Amino acid sequence: MQSESRLAEQLQFVLEIDRLKHIVRQTILLNGSRKENDAEHCWHVALMAFLLREYAADPDVDVFHVVKMLLVHDLVEIDAGDTYCYDEAARCDQAERERLAADRIFNLLPPDQAAGFRRLWEEFEARETREARYAAALDRFQPLLINYHRRGESWLEHGVTAEQVIRRNHPIHHGAPRLWQHAESLIADAVKRGWLENHEEGGKAEA
Amino acid sequence: MQSESRLAEQLQFVLEIDRLKHIVRQTILLNGSRKENDAEHCWHVALMAFLLREYAADPDVDVFHVVKMLLVHDLVEIDAGDTYCYDEAARCDQAERERLAADRIFNLLPPDQAAGFRRLWEEFEARETREARYAAALDRFQPLLINYHRRGESWLEHGVTAEQVIRRNHPIHHGAPRLWQHAESLIADAVKRGWLENHEEGGKAEA
Repeated sequence: MQSESRLAEQLQFVLEIDRLKHIVRQTILLNGSRKENDAEHCWHVALMAFLLREYAADPDVDVFHVVKMLLVHDLVEIDAGDTYCYDEAARCDQAERERLAADRIFNLLPPDQAAGFRRLWEEFEARETREARYAAALDRFQPLLINYHRRGESWLEHGVTAEQVIRRNHPIHHGAPRLWQHAESLIADAVKRGWLENHEEGGKAEA
Repeated sequence: MQSESRLAEQLQFVLEIDRLKHIVRQTILLNGSRKENDAEHCWHVALMAFLLREYAADPDVDVFHVVKMLLVHDLVEIDAGDTYCYDEAARCDQAERERLAADRIFNLLPPDQAAGFRRLWEEFEARETREARYAAALDRFQPLLINYHRRGESWLEHGVTAEQVIRRNHPIHHGAPRLWQHAESLIADAVKRGWLENHEEGGKAEA
């Protein structure tokens, strides 16, 4: 029966994405006990999307659409792994790895839903709609906020500079200007406290 | 400034709820490596809410409202801890522990949002609206599905019976009848395979 196999495909997808709980990020949890995983991150930013909606650049943003994008945006990392945003070497082939992952993972779903989930992910990646820009802002703001409150622990671990953090996080400005203003104050304070190096090493890191 | 303190309160809440990532549940992840935490569970069920919406008992269900409830529904466990659904002793004072937790945690927010988040949680708990019934169905279906695919590991660990699982999970029927039909087939198969005991021990467990 069609409906039997449809439900079976959907539940296979539900079981497959359990693996997102094992994809470890570079953000250290606020209590310092371990690094965050993608499923936890996605929960956190999805909740922030409606908690902080008053700061979205466009007040007409469709917040449910943003939440769906954020719940789905990291699924490709089940195959492609988490690429640390300041690891420029790993970022070279990131797009290709993630495209292959999308081909496999979303196609576990019935065709209509495979297409819908893939569109959500592609929209997030393209960062062209107001929803994608607000989603991207939250995706960057959450680790920045936690890293700051961990006294820059993961920045120091990787020798990240203020210039790299500003370049990486500037899209917050387009999606949530008030949050970018706050982020700038956190970055400035982190430099003052020595949690971020404040000289241009981008030439090497971005080569 | 009002807007400064409003953002500060919201971000304090964002940081506080990071602790949900440490609240361990009894569900074992599909790969068997460890138990699931509440943040991971909330991400999983929130995504399932729009993936499986065609199975909601009421086709007019407001899925965004369901997603918000599911992203928020376990926050009280930051203070109250996870109460294992088959631990009847712990369930005695669960409501009071969770009410105190709600008082503290939601009141970190600006008053308008504190009230809104609390209403979401209370609506979920009361299970009276179509949205709360669909949310409750997913909240139960997700661990049941994973436990089944772990060959009943957490049921066996706690000596849970088929009768207890049916009683606990029957609300799936009210929120998503097709998923309940599937759940019944999983429970029947689990009994056949010896992953669930099939005799009434509820008299003791539920006393």
